[in-house]
Amino acid sequence: MNIDGKPYRTIWLAADGRAVEVIDQTRLPHAFATVRLATMTQVADAIRGMTVRGAPLIGAAGAWGMALAMAEQPSDAMLARAYDVLLATRPTAVNLRWALDDLRARLATLPPAERRAAAYARAAEICDEDVATCRAIGSSGLPLIEAIARRKPAGARVNALTHCNAGWLATVDWGTALAPIYRAHDSGIDIHVWVDETRPRNQGAGLTAFELGRHGVPHTVIADNAGGHLIQRGMVDFCIVGTDRTTRNGDVCNKIGTYLKALAAHDNGVPFYVALPYPTIDWTLDDGVRDIPIEQRDPLEVSHVSGRTSAGRLDSVAVVPDGTPVANYGFDVTPARLVTALITERGICPASEAGLLSLYPERRTHQPSPREGGEKVARSAG
Amino acid sequence: MNIDGKPYRTIWLAADGRAVEVIDQTRLPHAFATVRLATMTQVADAIRGMTVRGAPLIGAAGAWGMALAMAEQPSDAMLARAYDVLLATRPTAVNLRWALDDLRARLATLPPAERRAAAYARAAEICDEDVATCRAIGSSGLPLIEAIARRKPAGARVNALTHCNAGWLATVDWGTALAPIYRAHDSGIDIHVWVDETRPRNQGAGLTAFELGRHGVPHTVIADNAGGHLIQRGMVDFCIVGTDRTTRNGDVCNKIGTYLKALAAHDNGVPFYVALPYPTIDWTLDDGVRDIPIEQRDPLEVSHVSGRTSAGRLDSVAVVPDGTPVANYGFDVTPARLVTALITERGICPASEAGLLSLYPERRTHQPSPREGGEKVARSAG
Repeated sequence: MNIDGKPYRTIWLAADGRAVEVIDQTRLPHAFATVRLATMTQVADAIRGMTVRGAPLIGAAGAWGMALAMAEQPSDAMLARAYDVLLATRPTAVNLRWALDDLRARLATLPPAERRAAAYARAAEICDEDVATCRAIGSSGLPLIEAIARRKPAGARVNALTHCNAGWLATVDWGTALAPIYRAHDSGIDIHVWVDETRPRNQGAGLTAFELGRHGVPHTVIADNAGGHLIQRGMVDFCIVGTDRTTRNGDVCNKIGTYLKALAAHDNGVPFYVALPYPTIDWTLDDGVRDIPIEQRDPLEVSHVSGRTSAGRLDSVAVVPDGTPVANYGFDVTPARLVTALITERGICPASEAGLLSLYPERRTHQPSPREGGEKVARSAG
Repeated sequence: MNIDGKPYRTIWLAADGRAVEVIDQTRLPHAFATVRLATMTQVADAIRGMTVRGAPLIGAAGAWGMALAMAEQPSDAMLARAYDVLLATRPTAVNLRWALDDLRARLATLPPAERRAAAYARAAEICDEDVATCRAIGSSGLPLIEAIARRKPAGARVNALTHCNAGWLATVDWGTALAPIYRAHDSGIDIHVWVDETRPRNQGAGLTAFELGRHGVPHTVIADNAGGHLIQRGMVDFCIVGTDRTTRNGDVCNKIGTYLKALAAHDNGVPFYVALPYPTIDWTLDDGVRDIPIEQRDPLEVSHVSGRTSAGRLDSVAVVPDGTPVANYGFDVTPARLVTALITERGICPASEAGLLSLYPERRTHQPSPREGGEKVARSAG
C-alpha cells in the first residue's frame, strides 16, 4: 500500500537485484525507515529482532533468507545451515516453516549452480502469491462494504471497527482484515476505521494507525474499552478482524479482546466479519473454545507500556505497582455463532463447517478420528 | 482499609485536631505518601490537583475545606468565599456541591463563634456517613459471595472480576464494588480478583491493584481485552463494578468498557453485579442508552500512557503515530437486562424499576413528566 503516496510492500528485492529491503517495524510508528538485508544471517536477525513480523511476512522473509544463503554459497551444507538458522528464529510461526520447507525441497533437487536463480525466483513468487491471496480477500470483502455504503444515506461515511493489526504490515501487501477496507477506500467509498489500540502490545495504536494514516484512510484510535459504546450508539456499520486460527466449524481464534467486540456487534445487530487466508483454517478442530490452547505471554507486556517519551526516546513505563501479579493471555476464541461471515481468498461464506466446505470442497473427505465422538458429527450435520 | 497492616481512611483529622491529612493519590501506585492540609486553600488545591479524587472522597474533602475555613475566620464573608473557591475546584462533581450546600446551610444559621466546632463535627459526620454507606454495601453484597463460595468445591478459590476503581480510594473507606470483596476477604473467604487495567487512565492497574495489594487481597492485573476469555473459560465466578449513574429502570452508566464485560458475563451465565450508594440513582431517567450523555475526555489520555520509567521518573509515552486522530469516550451504559442484581446500602434488588422501588419505596411518588410518554410508563409497568 502507499506511504505518503509512494507504493510499498513490506519486503522487496533491492535495486541491485541481490539484497532485499524491508520496512523496519521495530521503529514504527514513531519513525519510518527501511533496512537492507544482504545475508542470510541478517535476515535471521531481522526476524528474531522483529524488524519484520506478522506470520505471512515472516514466511516471505524466510524464503528470501534461503535465497541469500544460496547467493553466498549454494552448497548442501549451506542449504541445511540456512534452514536450521532461519527456522530457529521464530520456531512457532507456521508460515516460516512452510516457506523454508518449500525452498529446501525445491533447491535440494537442483544442482548447486542452479540454486541461486531458483531460490530468488521462488522467494519472489512466494511474495507475489501472498499479495495475490490478500488482494483476493479484498475482492471478496469489497462487495460487503459496497452494500453497506449503498444502504447509508447519500454522503454518509461508512464506519468500520477493527482490532489489532491485520493489515499490510503483517503480510507482504494488502493485509487480511484491512484488504477490503483498502479496496473500498481506493474505489472511492468514504470509509472511516475505528482502530482498537489493542493492549497489551498496542498493534492497533502503533501499526494499524500508521498504515491507515500513511495510505490516507480516515481512522480514529480508541481504547479497547470504547468499541462496545460505539457499536451500541450506531457509530459502527461493521466490524472486521483477522484470525490466527479458524476451526472447521468457524470458531475464530484471534488477538485477545476480539470476542468482546463480537459480543457487542451481535448484541446490536452489527455485522462481524473475519478475514482469513486459507492456511489459517485448522481442519482438524471443530470446537475452538474447547480445543484451542491459549498462549500466555510475558507479563511485562501488561505491566509496562512502550512508546515515545516527551524527550523523543523510546522507553517503557510501568503502569502497575511493584510486585503486582499480572496475567497476559494472547488470544481468545470467538464462537462461530457470533461471526456474520468469513471472508477468504475464494469468497465469503457462513462461519460454519458447511460454509467453509462450500468454498473448500476438497476438504469434504475429512473423516472424524476415533477421538472425535458422535456429538461432533451430529453438530456438524446440524 | 489496611495498608501493609495499618488501617487507613483516605482523609482524616490530624492528631492536632485542627488540620486534615489525606493520602496523596497523585503519587499512587508508585509511591505512598500522606499530605497535611491546614487551610481551605490547601484543600482546594488538593481537590483541583487530584491529590484526592473519587466523587464521595471529593465531597468529604470539600466539607473539611469548609471546616478549615471556619477555623481561619468564621465570618459570613469567609463562608461565602470558601463555598465559591471549593465549588470551583471540580464544578461537575455532584457530591462536592451536596457537601458544600450542607455545610453552608448549617453554618449560616449559627453565630460565628459556634461555626468552627459545628463545621468540624459535620465534616467528621459526613465522612462517617460515607463509611457507613459503603460498609452497608459490603454487608449487602457479602451473602452473594458467601453463596458462590459455598457452591464451589472445598478449597477452591472464588474469582471476581472488576473494572476501574470502585474501591476505598474513591471513597472515605471500603469503596462500593470492592466493599463486598473486602468483607469476604476479611471474613476468611479465599477470594481472588481479576483487575482490568482500565484504559485509558489505568485506574485498575494503578489504584485497584494498589489498594487490594496493600490490604492483602489476592489479585491479578489483566488487559481490558482479557476478561471475555477468562469468563468464557470458567475462570470468573462473578463480576462486580461500581456505577456513576444508575437510571430508574436499572441501566448502569459506568467506566468505558463495563458494557463489554457485562456482555461476556451474560453470554456465559456468570453473575454481573453493580454496587452503588443511593445518590448515584437518577430517578428522572428510565432509558440509560437513550438518555445519558457520554462525556468525551482529553485524547491525550488515549494517545499517551503515564507510568514510571526504568529510571524511576513519572513520565508518559506516546503510543500512536504523531497526528493520529483519537477519541476518548469516558463511560458506557450497560442495559439493565445484563445486570444480575444491584447492590446498595439497603440490600440487593433486581436491576429494574420494580427492584429499585422495593428498596426505595419513598420514590414511588414519581409522576412521569409530560415529556415522558406512555411508552415509558408501559415499559416501567412491564
